[in-house]
Amino acid sequence: MKNFLLIGLFLIPTLAYAQRNNGKGMLYLDENRRPVRRENIMIPAVNGFEVLKCDFHTHTVFSDGHVWPYVRNQEAWQEGLDALAITDHIEYTPHKEDVNVAHNRGYALLVESAKMSNILLVKGSEITRNTPPGHFNAIFTGDASGYTEDRSGEQDRSAVMKAAAQHAFIFWNHPGWQPDIEGSYEWIDFVEDLYRSKALHGIEVINDFDIHLKALDWCIDKDLTVMGSSDIHNLVAHEYDTSKDYVHRSMTLVMAKERTPEGIREALDAGRTVAWSSKYLVGKEEHVRPLFDACVELLPSHYTEVRGNGSKTNWYEIRNNSDLYFELELKEGNGTKRIVLYPRSAQLISAAAGIASLTYEVTSTYVRSNKHLTVDFSLR
Amino acid sequence: MKNFLLIGLFLIPTLAYAQRNNGKGMLYLDENRRPVRRENIMIPAVNGFEVLKCDFHTHTVFSDGHVWPYVRNQEAWQEGLDALAITDHIEYTPHKEDVNVAHNRGYALLVESAKMSNILLVKGSEITRNTPPGHFNAIFTGDASGYTEDRSGEQDRSAVMKAAAQHAFIFWNHPGWQPDIEGSYEWIDFVEDLYRSKALHGIEVINDFDIHLKALDWCIDKDLTVMGSSDIHNLVAHEYDTSKDYVHRSMTLVMAKERTPEGIREALDAGRTVAWSSKYLVGKEEHVRPLFDACVELLPSHYTEVRGNGSKTNWYEIRNNSDLYFELELKEGNGTKRIVLYPRSAQLISAAAGIASLTYEVTSTYVRSNKHLTVDFSLR
Amino acid sequence: MKNFLLIGLFLIPTLAYAQRNNGKGMLYLDENRRPVRRENIMIPAVNGFEVLKCDFHTHTVFSDGHVWPYVRNQEAWQEGLDALAITDHIEYTPHKEDVNVAHNRGYALLVESAKMSNILLVKGSEITRNTPPGHFNAIFTGDASGYTEDRSGEQDRSAVMKAAAQHAFIFWNHPGWQPDIEGSYEWIDFVEDLYRSKALHGIEVINDFDIHLKALDWCIDKDLTVMGSSDIHNLVAHEYDTSKDYVHRSMTLVMAKERTPEGIREALDAGRTVAWSSKYLVGKEEHVRPLFDACVELLPSHYTEVRGNGSKTNWYEIRNNSDLYFELELKEGNGTKRIVLYPRSAQLISAAAGIASLTYEVTSTYVRSNKHLTVDFSLR
Amino acid sequence: MKNFLLIGLFLIPTLAYAQRNNGKGMLYLDENRRPVRRENIMIPAVNGFEVLKCDFHTHTVFSDGHVWPYVRNQEAWQEGLDALAITDHIEYTPHKEDVNVAHNRGYALLVESAKMSNILLVKGSEITRNTPPGHFNAIFTGDASGYTEDRSGEQDRSAVMKAAAQHAFIFWNHPGWQPDIEGSYEWIDFVEDLYRSKALHGIEVINDFDIHLKALDWCIDKDLTVMGSSDIHNLVAHEYDTSKDYVHRSMTLVMAKERTPEGIREALDAGRTVAWSSKYLVGKEEHVRPLFDACVELLPSHYTEVRGNGSKTNWYEIRNNSDLYFELELKEGNGTKRIVLYPRSAQLISAAAGIASLTYEVTSTYVRSNKHLTVDFSLR
Repeated sequence: MKNFLLIGLFLIPTLAYAQRNNGKGMLYLDENRRPVRRENIMIPAVNGFEVLKCDFHTHTVFSDGHVWPYVRNQEAWQEGLDALAITDHIEYTPHKEDVNVAHNRGYALLVESAKMSNILLVKGSEITRNTPPGHFNAIFTGDASGYTEDRSGEQDRSAVMKAAAQHAFIFWNHPGWQPDIEGSYEWIDFVEDLYRSKALHGIEVINDFDIHLKALDWCIDKDLTVMGSSDIHNLVAHEYDTSKDYVHRSMTLVMAKERTPEGIREALDAGRTVAWSSKYLVGKEEHVRPLFDACVELLPSHYTEVRGNGSKTNWYEIRNNSDLYFELELKEGNGTKRIVLYPRSAQLISAAAGIASLTYEVTSTYVRSNKHLTVDFSLR
Repeated sequence: MKNFLLIGLFLIPTLAYAQRNNGKGMLYLDENRRPVRRENIMIPAVNGFEVLKCDFHTHTVFSDGHVWPYVRNQEAWQEGLDALAITDHIEYTPHKEDVNVAHNRGYALLVESAKMSNILLVKGSEITRNTPPGHFNAIFTGDASGYTEDRSGEQDRSAVMKAAAQHAFIFWNHPGWQPDIEGSYEWIDFVEDLYRSKALHGIEVINDFDIHLKALDWCIDKDLTVMGSSDIHNLVAHEYDTSKDYVHRSMTLVMAKERTPEGIREALDAGRTVAWSSKYLVGKEEHVRPLFDACVELLPSHYTEVRGNGSKTNWYEIRNNSDLYFELELKEGNGTKRIVLYPRSAQLISAAAGIASLTYEVTSTYVRSNKHLTVDFSLR
Repeated sequence: MKNFLLIGLFLIPTLAYAQRNNGKGMLYLDENRRPVRRENIMIPAVNGFEVLKCDFHTHTVFSDGHVWPYVRNQEAWQEGLDALAITDHIEYTPHKEDVNVAHNRGYALLVESAKMSNILLVKGSEITRNTPPGHFNAIFTGDASGYTEDRSGEQDRSAVMKAAAQHAFIFWNHPGWQPDIEGSYEWIDFVEDLYRSKALHGIEVINDFDIHLKALDWCIDKDLTVMGSSDIHNLVAHEYDTSKDYVHRSMTLVMAKERTPEGIREALDAGRTVAWSSKYLVGKEEHVRPLFDACVELLPSHYTEVRGNGSKTNWYEIRNNSDLYFELELKEGNGTKRIVLYPRSAQLISAAAGIASLTYEVTSTYVRSNKHLTVDFSLR
Repeated sequence: MKNFLLIGLFLIPTLAYAQRNNGKGMLYLDENRRPVRRENIMIPAVNGFEVLKCDFHTHTVFSDGHVWPYVRNQEAWQEGLDALAITDHIEYTPHKEDVNVAHNRGYALLVESAKMSNILLVKGSEITRNTPPGHFNAIFTGDASGYTEDRSGEQDRSAVMKAAAQHAFIFWNHPGWQPDIEGSYEWIDFVEDLYRSKALHGIEVINDFDIHLKALDWCIDKDLTVMGSSDIHNLVAHEYDTSKDYVHRSMTLVMAKERTPEGIREALDAGRTVAWSSKYLVGKEEHVRPLFDACVELLPSHYTEVRGNGSKTNWYEIRNNSDLYFELELKEGNGTKRIVLYPRSAQLISAAAGIASLTYEVTSTYVRSNKHLTVDFSLR
């Protein structure tokens, strides 16, 4: 009954917990309570843009999720997210025997909590059709109550078009998720029609632990925005192995002019995003490259080793100034063959003296379905 | 949408996760998914009774909890619980604008999932009055739909008596939880009446991180059963600091003849319980002592140290063969002054040679509001 | 200077640490000190034998290790080892400019500390030749001071024979460790000669993170004892990723009649061992099978699921009652395809109703270089 | 034998570990190896000075430490230290039966490894007298071989004076460490003489987990430099509970113009330091204040809550942009009473609308033995 008055907030005061006795038959053992803290996900600014951590695809009991909307805000706050959308299915509400169907309800219930906790809450819905074409998320929606509920079995575009008419930002969800259904991971006419109608603005290249690499190519070739989402139904704490410091929920990194809903929308419309799933960064080269450059720093050589045969080797420190993770493999130059940069850590690398640069593939990135980012380090 | 067909179960197959590529534009990164595993909470049998880990006080969206009932089963399974009750408030249903009020619903929604995952699901309800007298949990109930909903402001006994008429096991919740209200932590007439009517069978001596020590004395003096509960509304993963291996959700350890609902009920009726909150064990001496004895083992001396002055000291290994935690302070004898026994670990202790025994207080236990368990170790 | 009087022991008293102030200008922050605790590695008895956790291959500053012998005892105690040998190289003493060469010194310095902390200390040495043949460990040695030091470049058997004359137990270390040297991973005449002379009793099938699978076949075919070792030079804490609960230093599991040096020797001579490296168990089938059976338990079916089409599926809980790790893949029967059993945890599995048994390969074991243990579960 | 050629470096290549099979009877399980990574300890620049993480008090087998000097470099690199001194005792060499006494040897053995790994290695020694006066560290020494070894029982100043003549930086170690010896924690004549002779430049206000608060006052009143050290003899990994992210080895934070030995020396001479022990920062207010200001940031209010009674409360996010830890308690103003800022995390706080500022004591700092830093937050 501790939460009797807790109106959906996690606002246990910001205490350091301790054991204490009130002297009247009560002992409090708060030292074993999980500390309430918001993690900072550290990513430096990129080309002057703030990098916002955004999850625009989540579920609650108002469709097939397992939690009340409050939990989504609590998770987002703890994990250091900047923006969140609750995107319950319009057409799939398996709890409807118990929970009244109301398509704007998750947002409405959460809006004050989100404001209080400085989370940018974006209104959204998941429009659900059988696969193909599958599911579409509409965010920055107006009122979703008019979206049809009964057409999941049809290739009907009306709900998407209604969202588009509300100036929503619309993206195609997890296009490769049902590999056994023919046409499920194809650019079918239904999608082409939306695209031509300006009612498709992005594709979920990362969903949960899956990367839809072919969809990355579509985004590049058709000038759509690369999206990444958790699509969380259950608890983030039960789904992600956060004992590893490089594991975070899957999300979209949005390079925004300002930390506001408007700032996010402008960046989404401009396509300035990178999708992120723990070790992997997936996006257009024009965005992945400056993100890498903002995070990773090669210092000037601090030491020249002279080996027995007289050969000289220069040693360098390479630093990852972010909470992202990078793996690099040498492509050109006589130097360290493989580099792993864990969050907020550094490594030592070496190169034969006299060499001007080393070229690596950043194998933990994709800038095409078959291409990693390639980076050159000038050696000093 | 991953959980489209997931009818409330966490039954992601028991995989070791890995990264894999389907060769058709999809990359799966399941290596970063949290492993699905049920922890064994290791507690040896006590006097031939199996020690069952039970939480009979939890909430869902059907009252003021934050999760769908499924989550409670998922948590219980992961944490190694044997038995669980969903005990939503009868009289406090703050989500009722969205969630239809139905007092048996949490149980009904969960019963198949619980069976599949080998969790003993016990039907229950929380009967809610203003404090005093506060709240009462009824478990092993029949149909709770007839319990009154509108009397939280009255000191009305009817709902408790209806539960009692259904042969429920009834306990008083967190008696000391509102220290500022006069009479809130007293054995008031309302409680006395229930007690005399055989409609009160136990008291929640541990609730969440709080120990109601005075209530322990009541249990001892009035032959009531000692109960411990999480009273979880939010997520266990967000409330408990499980980075410490001695932290578990608060619960009742039930010493049962068999791992069945009937076995639990028999043990509750017989009062064979110890309440457990992470570092602390609270109960009647007749139960705490054999539990300690079953878990902690002093080995024969393995070494005699001869010091410079000729004095001799015997060294011993003391082992904790359980997932419980114990702290001991020396009361009598010339030996190690303080011992901390973390879960599944051992310590070295010493005693002057020639001493026959050491006497310790187990300061992490309470067998009276002002008394720890005292144990004697015979030295060999 | 805290350790001024600490004669090599880690015997910080067994305190629960706390912050405290002595009121005279001193504040003690022991709450942040790492707790001193000995982990129990839980492995049930196997066929009535106690399973001892033994590392017979470690180094100190007396050869090319990085630590004083005390650290090896401290590590062994903390990690729950039963037995330890310091096996510094006879012929390779790179610190000799600073550290006086003395081949029995590691043992002598440690013997009292080991006794006090209930670690069975076994005397040993590593006899070091260029590869091939490479290195041999002699344990249960007498006096190693007479072993020659200057013959690492020769295929000289004299030091091994001297150890054998002292009734040492001798095993060939990491036979596959230098894959690029011809003959390095072959049963060469040098080895055959030792074997025929009864001066070779085992082979290190596991060394650190490497498994020498071909050597397992040799052990089986020639009736040699399977050994596993850490060969630790650096700190265990810096080499092993103990954030994973299934990671322990590599070691030999010895199935002994009693926890004494004699008990260990008898078991080594009888070949009752399994080599263990975190996820992997490697040994002869006659030892791996009962070890598996002692640890893993399939419970009777607790639930029959009836699906929409009328088909029935039985559900079972499978428990790992040990700190070992097991992975299983289905070979025969209609049931769960893959099972991962983390330490002290359980999983749910299912099988079509009516099936009498399921057959799995335990892919985390090797009982031949090309063969996993196969197990049958009778279904009840 | 893996380290046969490892000349004291931890330079296992910067790999992401994996399991692999060479197809010739060898299986490599490097996935369970602890990753080699250097942590960045994140502390923003303070007043344009770089904040260097320095430990000038450590031991090896060359006095009473438990490790070869290499381990100290390895630890320093992993933990993100910038500078390290090996300061073995001149007069206390308990391993001398085995290890030849040589007072500059730890430095000499480490100098190349330190260079390669970009650790600034500072030469040093611990000059050891019975208490009082106790011990003194000399760093930036020349040749320590001439320091006397046989005067630990005398209050002899000669060794300190020799170090001073070499222009060493000299500090008094752990002045309060032996509370039971009379005069041990007093400003005795011996110390006064050194001080007047300009042969005492700092005092170890933090040693390991102890804070010598009275020594802080001496530093302030006598213009001496505040020092913090680990004084590590054993392994850092065995002494510090690094499962808590705010726990690091105790050290001196040096605010330097540049990351060079000269830069450090200049800062030490100028007294620009703060001593750090996990949760606590201890130093002169002129250094602790700008360090706090550089790390902690209060954002403008993001939300105004209007409560039922019409009262308004403003909400703020307060961020800790560092790896330090801070606890704050409200002194003035109507706002959140207690704030805990874990490393790289944020909290929500609130204040009554209309209030211009809140005043807190930073209770995790000491700027006098009886005084915490006080900070004012202007509210926007």
